[in-house]
Amino acid sequence: MIERYSRPEMKKVWSESHAFGLWLRIEVAVSEAWAELRVIPAEDAALIKRAKFNPDAYARWFADTKHDVVSFIRAVGESLGEERRWLHHGLTSNDVKDTALSLQMTRSLELILAGVKRLMDACASRALEFKDTPCIGRSHGIHAEPLSFGLKPALWRAELGRQVERLEATARRVAIGKISGPVGTYASVPPEIEAYVCDRLGLQPAPISNQVIQRDRHAEFVLSLALLAATLEKVATEIRALQRTEIGEVQEPFGEPGFVTKGSSSMPHKRNPELSERVCGLARLVRGYAVTALENVPLWHERDISHSSAERMILPDSALALDYMLHVLTRVVSGMEVYPARMMRNLEFTRGVVFSPRVMLALVEAGMDRSMAYELVQQHALYASHKEADFRDLVCDDPRITRLTPEPELRRLFDYAYFMRFTDHTFRGIGLLPSVSPTEPEKAVT
Amino acid sequence: MIERYSRPEMKKVWSESHAFGLWLRIEVAVSEAWAELRVIPAEDAALIKRAKFNPDAYARWFADTKHDVVSFIRAVGESLGEERRWLHHGLTSNDVKDTALSLQMTRSLELILAGVKRLMDACASRALEFKDTPCIGRSHGIHAEPLSFGLKPALWRAELGRQVERLEATARRVAIGKISGPVGTYASVPPEIEAYVCDRLGLQPAPISNQVIQRDRHAEFVLSLALLAATLEKVATEIRALQRTEIGEVQEPFGEPGFVTKGSSSMPHKRNPELSERVCGLARLVRGYAVTALENVPLWHERDISHSSAERMILPDSALALDYMLHVLTRVVSGMEVYPARMMRNLEFTRGVVFSPRVMLALVEAGMDRSMAYELVQQHALYASHKEADFRDLVCDDPRITRLTPEPELRRLFDYAYFMRFTDHTFRGIGLLPSVSPTEPEKAVT
Amino acid sequence: MIERYSRPEMKKVWSESHAFGLWLRIEVAVSEAWAELRVIPAEDAALIKRAKFNPDAYARWFADTKHDVVSFIRAVGESLGEERRWLHHGLTSNDVKDTALSLQMTRSLELILAGVKRLMDACASRALEFKDTPCIGRSHGIHAEPLSFGLKPALWRAELGRQVERLEATARRVAIGKISGPVGTYASVPPEIEAYVCDRLGLQPAPISNQVIQRDRHAEFVLSLALLAATLEKVATEIRALQRTEIGEVQEPFGEPGFVTKGSSSMPHKRNPELSERVCGLARLVRGYAVTALENVPLWHERDISHSSAERMILPDSALALDYMLHVLTRVVSGMEVYPARMMRNLEFTRGVVFSPRVMLALVEAGMDRSMAYELVQQHALYASHKEADFRDLVCDDPRITRLTPEPELRRLFDYAYFMRFTDHTFRGIGLLPSVSPTEPEKAVT
Amino acid sequence: MIERYSRPEMKKVWSESHAFGLWLRIEVAVSEAWAELRVIPAEDAALIKRAKFNPDAYARWFADTKHDVVSFIRAVGESLGEERRWLHHGLTSNDVKDTALSLQMTRSLELILAGVKRLMDACASRALEFKDTPCIGRSHGIHAEPLSFGLKPALWRAELGRQVERLEATARRVAIGKISGPVGTYASVPPEIEAYVCDRLGLQPAPISNQVIQRDRHAEFVLSLALLAATLEKVATEIRALQRTEIGEVQEPFGEPGFVTKGSSSMPHKRNPELSERVCGLARLVRGYAVTALENVPLWHERDISHSSAERMILPDSALALDYMLHVLTRVVSGMEVYPARMMRNLEFTRGVVFSPRVMLALVEAGMDRSMAYELVQQHALYASHKEADFRDLVCDDPRITRLTPEPELRRLFDYAYFMRFTDHTFRGIGLLPSVSPTEPEKAVT
Repeated sequence: MIERYSRPEMKKVWSESHAFGLWLRIEVAVSEAWAELRVIPAEDAALIKRAKFNPDAYARWFADTKHDVVSFIRAVGESLGEERRWLHHGLTSNDVKDTALSLQMTRSLELILAGVKRLMDACASRALEFKDTPCIGRSHGIHAEPLSFGLKPALWRAELGRQVERLEATARRVAIGKISGPVGTYASVPPEIEAYVCDRLGLQPAPISNQVIQRDRHAEFVLSLALLAATLEKVATEIRALQRTEIGEVQEPFGEPGFVTKGSSSMPHKRNPELSERVCGLARLVRGYAVTALENVPLWHERDISHSSAERMILPDSALALDYMLHVLTRVVSGMEVYPARMMRNLEFTRGVVFSPRVMLALVEAGMDRSMAYELVQQHALYASHKEADFRDLVCDDPRITRLTPEPELRRLFDYAYFMRFTDHTFRGIGLLPSVSPTEPEKAVT
Repeated sequence: MIERYSRPEMKKVWSESHAFGLWLRIEVAVSEAWAELRVIPAEDAALIKRAKFNPDAYARWFADTKHDVVSFIRAVGESLGEERRWLHHGLTSNDVKDTALSLQMTRSLELILAGVKRLMDACASRALEFKDTPCIGRSHGIHAEPLSFGLKPALWRAELGRQVERLEATARRVAIGKISGPVGTYASVPPEIEAYVCDRLGLQPAPISNQVIQRDRHAEFVLSLALLAATLEKVATEIRALQRTEIGEVQEPFGEPGFVTKGSSSMPHKRNPELSERVCGLARLVRGYAVTALENVPLWHERDISHSSAERMILPDSALALDYMLHVLTRVVSGMEVYPARMMRNLEFTRGVVFSPRVMLALVEAGMDRSMAYELVQQHALYASHKEADFRDLVCDDPRITRLTPEPELRRLFDYAYFMRFTDHTFRGIGLLPSVSPTEPEKAVT
Repeated sequence: MIERYSRPEMKKVWSESHAFGLWLRIEVAVSEAWAELRVIPAEDAALIKRAKFNPDAYARWFADTKHDVVSFIRAVGESLGEERRWLHHGLTSNDVKDTALSLQMTRSLELILAGVKRLMDACASRALEFKDTPCIGRSHGIHAEPLSFGLKPALWRAELGRQVERLEATARRVAIGKISGPVGTYASVPPEIEAYVCDRLGLQPAPISNQVIQRDRHAEFVLSLALLAATLEKVATEIRALQRTEIGEVQEPFGEPGFVTKGSSSMPHKRNPELSERVCGLARLVRGYAVTALENVPLWHERDISHSSAERMILPDSALALDYMLHVLTRVVSGMEVYPARMMRNLEFTRGVVFSPRVMLALVEAGMDRSMAYELVQQHALYASHKEADFRDLVCDDPRITRLTPEPELRRLFDYAYFMRFTDHTFRGIGLLPSVSPTEPEKAVT
Repeated sequence: MIERYSRPEMKKVWSESHAFGLWLRIEVAVSEAWAELRVIPAEDAALIKRAKFNPDAYARWFADTKHDVVSFIRAVGESLGEERRWLHHGLTSNDVKDTALSLQMTRSLELILAGVKRLMDACASRALEFKDTPCIGRSHGIHAEPLSFGLKPALWRAELGRQVERLEATARRVAIGKISGPVGTYASVPPEIEAYVCDRLGLQPAPISNQVIQRDRHAEFVLSLALLAATLEKVATEIRALQRTEIGEVQEPFGEPGFVTKGSSSMPHKRNPELSERVCGLARLVRGYAVTALENVPLWHERDISHSSAERMILPDSALALDYMLHVLTRVVSGMEVYPARMMRNLEFTRGVVFSPRVMLALVEAGMDRSMAYELVQQHALYASHKEADFRDLVCDDPRITRLTPEPELRRLFDYAYFMRFTDHTFRGIGLLPSVSPTEPEKAVT
């Protein structure tokens, strides 16, 4: 991942030096475990605890062997005396590498889950802020019926809640260590070692492995992040659309410290939703990684190493991308300017046409056949649209309608508040408002 | 999905007539709910229960309107009298369509979960059958160290167990109904209707929706199936590789009723692992759908309908493909012929080279520096490979080795059973054998 | 592909019966070629020309053998006497199947290229129609600078022209026959047969093959269609956006024969750009197939058959999808209603803010430092946006500006026609208008 | 792309400093062009030629504006006097950025095409070296019929030849400059400027553009690289399979300078095809980028910037990956050890079963019904496989066979050379051997 889209904490998780540190931690823990089993003398294990990794020595060995774990062992061995022979005892490279990778994925998910929760809080806060602000709902990009603007961030928050469920399940399934030796038989390293090491690292031992931890786990990691990315893309797409010049209901923060102050090199008037656009682009990137991750699952026999080169890119980059996207989007959602007056202007844009379903239903309830009601109302709606007439007046002037539903009754239908009657109900159902009664559930069913 | 890869029960789930049946069931349940709320007269609701769907009437209306739900309502309405005006009352199309789709996905997952469990049983049975059969483990396609052949199906079963976890979680998240009217405000259809209908259908009401049920749920459906497909591809890839002429450790069923009897139109001697190859191809297909499903998540505002055309293909086809793949692969795993004698021949193929790690570790344990031991053993191994000599004899003839580890001790190392010491342990850990003691966990930690 | 998105001619190309017809045509041509080489007696070859394919016989044989070509040969053989033994002589299944597949892909590309050209014509016609109609250009969804509305369809047409180039190159690379026997050695069928048959079918012989025609060709077929789909999605996305209620510059055809007449089951006022949305959804589908097609390239050795199950879906479906998408989009582009008055209203929406770059450049040309000019103009633009003031008046009232560029000169800048000065130049460059002079190139450089 | 998979020359193409150098080159060329048009005074243009880019100044401006081109212009402006106001005159950011990107893609394709040609040469050389070496052909991983081992690299070379065609066409379509100002109207920068600048840079002017060069071009760049990657993956997959312990027909270079010397940290005997595996992994990565690239095509209106964040990764990384993969694979193909003796052993592995098609065809030519011949031969082949008997002896002992084709004639069929009769023909057809006669084409028809 390029510097520009990398945040420091996540970058550290995936840095080479951090990885080598994890490898050393695992090798030391393995030595301790062997000492517990009295295979390695206790004093040798104690000496191994003081082992140091020297990157220059590593580079030297790597130039010679082109094998990373062999080079690592030899480089670390240089900091030791004869006890160095116990380093990596009974292990195969992936005992160390895959276990370290699990720690990196686990830590990544912790950071990302914290990021999701911050975004959920931002959504919750904006949802409550605009719970009673009406705006037009759009389907197909076309005005449909009014709704509370607060429902938008409320819906995002509920969806993010499902992502939390998924990520937590994924986190459980990737927090797995494997110290089972070549092809996973434990022949050279008994299960007690694995149990000891995993316990020290906060991982579960792989219930069964071959040369590697199975790649369905790593694929799930990427798929869960790609699905999260799609949700963030949805939020970003909404903001981009609402910031369109003709709509103008929200605007990304702009001109404040940390945000863009020039929208365009050529057009001084531009104020663009570019952070949201950036989130959309990165979602596409992670979507591509989902394919790669799935292809890494069916390795040959007890492993082939084809997954490795791809994983060096897709695992860090999907973690870094999501960490960054969450950060950016949280700032956008928290800081975006919202324009209720513009929403009201947009509601009135079609001069009442959005009330067409209410009129139709009123006619049906008053006894008109549904198809007839539909077509009658549709005529007025299309006429109003083309002629820039007021739909409300048109229907109040139509005796076929007023015969069944008199004008005063019709006029009562033209009420935006009507569409927001159940907003509180929805907010309660997803935990954004306290339940009315103790019998109602406090938490959302996702 | 083409006929050839479609099984009847799943095909029925996704048939147009089944979908229309679900729509009708939902419309009727909505009418009942309205009657409970006393908006629709009880006698009208009772009449609506007898509504019938006529496909010819539908086709007629569709030619005119090009709108499926409008045509459906009108077609059903033809089977009714004036009470027809209450049909679809307060609803938007997706109240019906999305709720029906959830029922289809839910039923698909039931069938697929049953299929996964059948495959798990087949794996368990073959795992136990070959628990004590040694074969060579391979990494990078190259002989590594021996292992129990039973570990292969045991590992598949454990991985399928994780897929069950994922699919069950997905099933909970797609079993969702939505009866909340245009843009999800409940303005025209109060939440009681949704609660009533979902209860009747065995679904949870969407805690919040807009015009549609959110597409992260549908994407998860496809992603979970694509991940399952990757696991099936892994099993199939293993079988394809083990059936290679030079390896010959297993063969797909052949020449029996229901299986292929001709391998090639030109080469009468061919017996190909073509069912496993077919599974691999279909996994690629579903992998492509994963991309499509993720792209369907970020719809515009309260919905756009771009997801719909893609879903008409990817939702049924991913369900049909997995149903078929599971069926085929279960038959292959259950019926495949396994050749332990060939496995033993392959074990001996390298004349003892696979014992190199044991010799190296013995030298280390006898006091030799690890790097020195590695290089000494590597020399013998490469020489044995190139000269077709027996590695065991070479090391027993090397005084640098026998000085530390005398020949009788070395000869004891050359024992395939040694590599299978912990097979029972692993089988117990994943629930394929009963635990030894009541303190050990009975179930696998996945 | 589902019925709904399949057009008859393309459906026929990919029908099973058409495929069997091609197989028969190839087998007959092979027999003729053998007769030319005097391996098959001329009278037998003559009898074979009268061979018939009976689908029922095929079904019977397939139930027994599960092998399609074997069953085909036996079914055809039933229509023959003893000369049946020459059927498929020296061939391997893929000599027939892959050659037939090339014919299907070739024919598909012909239909699709014709479809692209029809869409190009529709674009050309609308481009010329609106060459002098100003509308606002948008970047990031935000008003940028004015442009000719005709430039939009003109740009689509130019991009489609590049797609024609790509598709024609692809067509050359898929119009390939292979009659080279098992693993492509010609051992059982000499190259003269291949040359004869390919000549009869209008194909080039594969310069080298193994058991199959290499799958980079088939992958290119799908990739080229996926890239074309992305261009169609771009056109469709533009139309969807321009039809948004607040923008309203175009509308898809509606309410006419063959087009939708009801936008929504619940909202009689809806008129949605649903055909364009459908195109977007199908583009996602074909995008997924691109992944599958690429995965089919690296087959094992002289072939494995894993590509086959996937190709049964992705080759016909990508052809059918593109054929349908082109058809739909051509009707939309040809028939869409365009509203120049609305474009003018939108141009004025920001009260002159879109002239900010011209003012900045004028200030620079009058000697002001660029950064200073940028910031000065930016201030007025942002103020105008927030306060709904007229940007033109603001700048004319600012002495820092008028000192360098007096008001009359400034007022001259506020001219939409200025932005369309070079539209004719562009139209000429892409062949939509005749060149001015004989030295200018007539055709677009793509 | 990580350091490990980046080669210096390609890394330089995509370095930030190289990009800024291109931006400066473009800005200077634009100034020159304006001077030609006498808008900028000649002396100012002359001064601008001496402009310098200072990365520290850039960093300072970027921290303030978060806009890259604005910061670039200001940083460069610091190296100039008042003539700085002409910098970027009339341009929009993407005039500079997209034109520079085209130069980067163009240069990348030059390097990649050179790499493809080196790999083609390596394939040609190995093809000729093993033109007369028989090996077994495999379909479905199962022994099929013999072929020349040289046909394998010959086929790769022919396929790479098609990739050259595709890449050259792509190179023509991405070598495009755009200097057309905001939304592509030329309003602020007349077409003469674009023509002048493109001419200086060796690019073609975009025949039509909006705010950007259209992304079908960039998508084609990535798709062409993904397709090339799939071909490389195919070569690598073949090598991996042929190096399998049981097959052993080739081995990657090992233990020589620059190649791996340790196959495994735990198993000293391992010699793994890990370079080929690495190529397979990277092909998966680039395949994922194909999806991302296609999604970047349908931008909103005259551009949205969502493509940009994704392109910062996928364009350099797909170029870097292919450059590296070509380099690695060329070394593998050139340096791989090939074992003809092992090939002969593998040919004999099935004791003549691979001659089954020849026997069947001989029986047909001697008058037997094809189905009968097929089943007779199949019986012997399956029996030979199961019982480890020699197929040749079995058929020579069967009077039903010898009645039609006497034993001496049968024995003549069992000849590996027969399968290589047409190897020279194929080699001539693809230009690996000179044509026999002047009338035959020298070059392959791809």
